[in-house]
Amino acid sequence: MTKIAIIGLGLIGGSLGIDLCAKGLEVVGVSRNPETCRRAREHKAVTQASVELDILTDVDIVFICTPLGAISLTCQKLIPYLQPHTVVTDVGSVKTPIVRECSELWTNFIGGHPMAGTAEQGIEAAQKGLFVNAPYVLTPIASTPPEITEKLSGIVQLLDSKLYFSSPENHDQAVAWISHLPVMISASLIQACMSETETDILNLAQQLASSGFRDTSRVGGGNPELGVMMACYNQEALARSLLAYRESLDTIIETINRQDWQALNQIFETTQVTRNFFC
Amino acid sequence: MTKIAIIGLGLIGGSLGIDLCAKGLEVVGVSRNPETCRRAREHKAVTQASVELDILTDVDIVFICTPLGAISLTCQKLIPYLQPHTVVTDVGSVKTPIVRECSELWTNFIGGHPMAGTAEQGIEAAQKGLFVNAPYVLTPIASTPPEITEKLSGIVQLLDSKLYFSSPENHDQAVAWISHLPVMISASLIQACMSETETDILNLAQQLASSGFRDTSRVGGGNPELGVMMACYNQEALARSLLAYRESLDTIIETINRQDWQALNQIFETTQVTRNFFC
Repeated sequence: MTKIAIIGLGLIGGSLGIDLCAKGLEVVGVSRNPETCRRAREHKAVTQASVELDILTDVDIVFICTPLGAISLTCQKLIPYLQPHTVVTDVGSVKTPIVRECSELWTNFIGGHPMAGTAEQGIEAAQKGLFVNAPYVLTPIASTPPEITEKLSGIVQLLDSKLYFSSPENHDQAVAWISHLPVMISASLIQACMSETETDILNLAQQLASSGFRDTSRVGGGNPELGVMMACYNQEALARSLLAYRESLDTIIETINRQDWQALNQIFETTQVTRNFFC
Repeated sequence: MTKIAIIGLGLIGGSLGIDLCAKGLEVVGVSRNPETCRRAREHKAVTQASVELDILTDVDIVFICTPLGAISLTCQKLIPYLQPHTVVTDVGSVKTPIVRECSELWTNFIGGHPMAGTAEQGIEAAQKGLFVNAPYVLTPIASTPPEITEKLSGIVQLLDSKLYFSSPENHDQAVAWISHLPVMISASLIQACMSETETDILNLAQQLASSGFRDTSRVGGGNPELGVMMACYNQEALARSLLAYRESLDTIIETINRQDWQALNQIFETTQVTRNFFC
């Protein structure tokens, strides 16, 4: 039977563990915090848990579920405890730098990105079925042994996720468009509104704001650490998206400035239709 | 008893009529379409309805509920049918040009903006209680007789709306921030994503898009006509908001480009807190 290890027992690691334990797999968990280990056992997110990496000695697949900034270092640390056949994967939301670093450290590494989450964090937020119908992208590269891609695909299918394959670079540009760019433009909206210096107008705007403002500003008012991580780890792809976005914004500004209402209508008719192409 | 007239029996006019009829007021409706008149009577949105303006001869308050572009002309057309004491108001989402034009046509004019709606349009979308707890802004100017402001405030209170007073100019700048700017930046997002020329990346982005993209792009994928109307009627205030927005966006782009993660974190910490100031 496949034996799984999960390093980092937060929302993603804990939820992965709950589903894999429920499928009857043996799941060992590692957290730096003994209390987290205890709670993970209580939540049935792991069959056993430890603060020490020597629990990993006979596992088949390791999921690194630490924050983005700790993935490569964690990979490096756990290598001494692995069998040669052990598959290592991660769940980070940016893939290019992680896949580059971890593939050099370990041949049987394959990057992954389960695209599910909640506003909550930590083992207490972990839940059953978090990944059902959610996209799960695997990012094998030329040097990735095909059998480990197959092995991990089998696990992803156990989670009832929608499995996608992509190069790390294409993944990062795709998430720059639909996940990281929205955060930056949404934060810019909040920041711009707060720049209003007329107190009466700002107060009225704050009182009148409703669903349109709420939806457009939601991801810009989220976890600051996450926003910085996106920008820091996916800087190149995000910069390309931001540049295209500013050109798109400038087109709309110029169209309004020259009062070309027919052209503006054409833009909105196109965006109304093309938005439907995105899930 | 106060007798109300509603010109234009769409979502807003119809919903206003339903609530005012339910409060026992007499409500006469005018639509250019006889079928709309019939449906408005069936929906109990009016006590009587007509395609002719001569139904208005003895009404106390007229609500002009036509699209933004037809309000001033409608005001002009109905004047021959009014009593000197009749109060005229409108429900347009931009106030400065409408209040300027209509106040010159009719002394007892006061601008209004009930901020409620649904994605649907027309008399069939009209519903009971649409304005409950929604903001309803009245925009009296220096020449507005105080007694008509008071009279209309009484009607707004019957709807259980949240009543606000503002100058037309402050109203327009406030809605530029929280309603019209979001539409422009959200449409720019959809347009920018569609500019991706690598088919594999665009396809993957479309498949991976989830709640973050969906929320941020929602108002940019809405009714094109409405988007054009906002820009056309509120051009000055919107241009001011767009300029501030582009500066805000540039600050974020520059912060990312110089890899100043501490400053970026500070921006996100501020937006996370300040978003809560908006209802």
